[in-house]
Amino acid sequence: MKHAEMVTEPSKVHVSLGERSYDIAIGHGLLPGLGARIAPLLSRPLTAIVTDENVATRHLQALEDSLRAAGIKTTAIILPPGEATKSFDKLAEVCDSLLAASIERRDRVIAFGGGVIGDLAGFAAAILRRGVGFIQIPTTLLAQVDSSVGGKTGINSRHGKNLIGSFHQPVAVFADTALLETLPRRELAAGYAEVVKYGALGDAGFFRWLEESVDGIFGGNAALRGRAVEVSCLAKARIVAEDETETGVRALLNLGHTFGHALEAATGYSSRLLHGEAVAIGMVQAARFSEAEGHCPQGTADRLARHLARAGLPVSTANIADALPSPPALLEIMRQDKKSVGGKLTLILLRGIGEAFIARNVDERRIVAFLEEDRTRR
Amino acid sequence: MKHAEMVTEPSKVHVSLGERSYDIAIGHGLLPGLGARIAPLLSRPLTAIVTDENVATRHLQALEDSLRAAGIKTTAIILPPGEATKSFDKLAEVCDSLLAASIERRDRVIAFGGGVIGDLAGFAAAILRRGVGFIQIPTTLLAQVDSSVGGKTGINSRHGKNLIGSFHQPVAVFADTALLETLPRRELAAGYAEVVKYGALGDAGFFRWLEESVDGIFGGNAALRGRAVEVSCLAKARIVAEDETETGVRALLNLGHTFGHALEAATGYSSRLLHGEAVAIGMVQAARFSEAEGHCPQGTADRLARHLARAGLPVSTANIADALPSPPALLEIMRQDKKSVGGKLTLILLRGIGEAFIARNVDERRIVAFLEEDRTRR
Repeated sequence: MKHAEMVTEPSKVHVSLGERSYDIAIGHGLLPGLGARIAPLLSRPLTAIVTDENVATRHLQALEDSLRAAGIKTTAIILPPGEATKSFDKLAEVCDSLLAASIERRDRVIAFGGGVIGDLAGFAAAILRRGVGFIQIPTTLLAQVDSSVGGKTGINSRHGKNLIGSFHQPVAVFADTALLETLPRRELAAGYAEVVKYGALGDAGFFRWLEESVDGIFGGNAALRGRAVEVSCLAKARIVAEDETETGVRALLNLGHTFGHALEAATGYSSRLLHGEAVAIGMVQAARFSEAEGHCPQGTADRLARHLARAGLPVSTANIADALPSPPALLEIMRQDKKSVGGKLTLILLRGIGEAFIARNVDERRIVAFLEEDRTRR
Repeated sequence: MKHAEMVTEPSKVHVSLGERSYDIAIGHGLLPGLGARIAPLLSRPLTAIVTDENVATRHLQALEDSLRAAGIKTTAIILPPGEATKSFDKLAEVCDSLLAASIERRDRVIAFGGGVIGDLAGFAAAILRRGVGFIQIPTTLLAQVDSSVGGKTGINSRHGKNLIGSFHQPVAVFADTALLETLPRRELAAGYAEVVKYGALGDAGFFRWLEESVDGIFGGNAALRGRAVEVSCLAKARIVAEDETETGVRALLNLGHTFGHALEAATGYSSRLLHGEAVAIGMVQAARFSEAEGHCPQGTADRLARHLARAGLPVSTANIADALPSPPALLEIMRQDKKSVGGKLTLILLRGIGEAFIARNVDERRIVAFLEEDRTRR
């Protein structure tokens, strides 16, 4: 299915965080009209756009034209695409460029790209002059449903992913689902893993709807895509509003992420395994481990795996078998994860589809035993 | 006057910031007993100490012994002394070292040093795993009365000082005035400039007390030093509690700082002109400019200058004349200051000793004219 361009009034998801509250506007074809929506958010008609080379090639002109039409002066800071950009070096470079662009304390920075750009630009905004506001314009499905919402920003360290960062909420998010049409299918699928996550962790009805809608979503149905983004943002907004800095329930959003991070680290955070792909495998692992520990009914993991596979996602470590370190080495990576407390491991496990829970102090020997068994799975 | 070692129960200054509230403990000879005071602040008996080579040589052993006696495992991260340490490179190094020391989200980091160490270690704590707690043990007068209180942390950029950072409040501050006895006199004087600032900006009575006590303070009278630190911390705590993130009244703490920063930048943030020395000259400039603009009585600047000179501080740009760029170039540096709004300059000026105010949109031509005249002053 191909859909004609349509610009309707976007739907809004409100993220309720007191004086840090903001709206996520979700719509098809928002980009060319964003200048008028952004102008009222600025204290003076000047901003800087942080983006990457891929997004710049496809969409920067449209954003700049729209801002210029609204009388807003812009500077573009264009970075190499890819996870390696989330480094201290690039952070310093972005901060320097923002200062060179005369960004002052009441100005706002625009993060225009996927998760890497959102995390890096958001973090740069968080620490520039001890905090300037920023606006997220996520261009990937992953960023639209996950990384642009909730205020987690940061970079990677050689000790692990996202180990350096801030909680810094955007002042607004604009998710244009039309941008997903230029997204490579593999990246679309990687983002979809996070959509499935919201169903798996807390909304069995949404999970069923996704099972029915997955072909339409990947076929390009804009209405289905819009609905998937909206429900995902609502789910995340609800959890973030309840627990902004992850002292409790927000940890549920890490379903599949502790297992997944270990796989990402093992593959060097490379294009061999995208974040969403690692999360897909990690969710299935979390479900299988939940079954093995007797927390959820047999068949839960298979149902999850079937759905993810239907979306074209990897669902087992067999896909990356030759890159995998030993289970004890994987455990060591999981331990270094920032959710570790007192050296004990916390995992997000399932009681069933739609019902995740935080399992603290998980016995590390059982995890190693599970990983040993899991790597023989084909 | 030399005073025998004495350990009395420290006085406490409470910084009231809701759930981020904390106490500043001020006392003479606190260091050897700090382990027992710090232990209850930790979630497990492990911490990392960030310090510099000078402080490490003089005092690290005592702190480590005290922590070890309280059963706390420590790692020391020792940096080169000096402003150049407040860089992105050193920030990355400290973050990596903290991760290598297994510092987790609920652990706490100790900043043990002067302003440079407090700002850098505090910022590293602010961004490590999106925020771990930290404890300030300031070892200089400047740090005890200013930088360790109020939660401003950060590093320098090539565009200016402290342009990258976070507001991150410590969980506790321990100011041991006995540490001031090993401080070079020049550094003591530099810190004293900030003490004088609290009197000048809001407490004429304290200013008079300082005029009477300055010889005793520099002579080594521990009681007078303790009182000077305590009143200074109280003054800062009151202002910070009212305006944590500097949207209003906190700007008053910048008395002398906008003029001063330009002088520091002009001298390359080097030992040619210490921060406190720049603030001393900057305060006198602010007072002279206030007189020139008719905001305060003639003689205010001279009285301020006399007091600062008595403490051995420079009070005019004549002391650094050969390093000074032209007034328009100085203005350009002042403009880049983070307090600039919409390209207009905000200064802190005086209506008299003890009464500072925020002057917004100051006419830049009048500043240049003043700087022209001021540099001919001897």
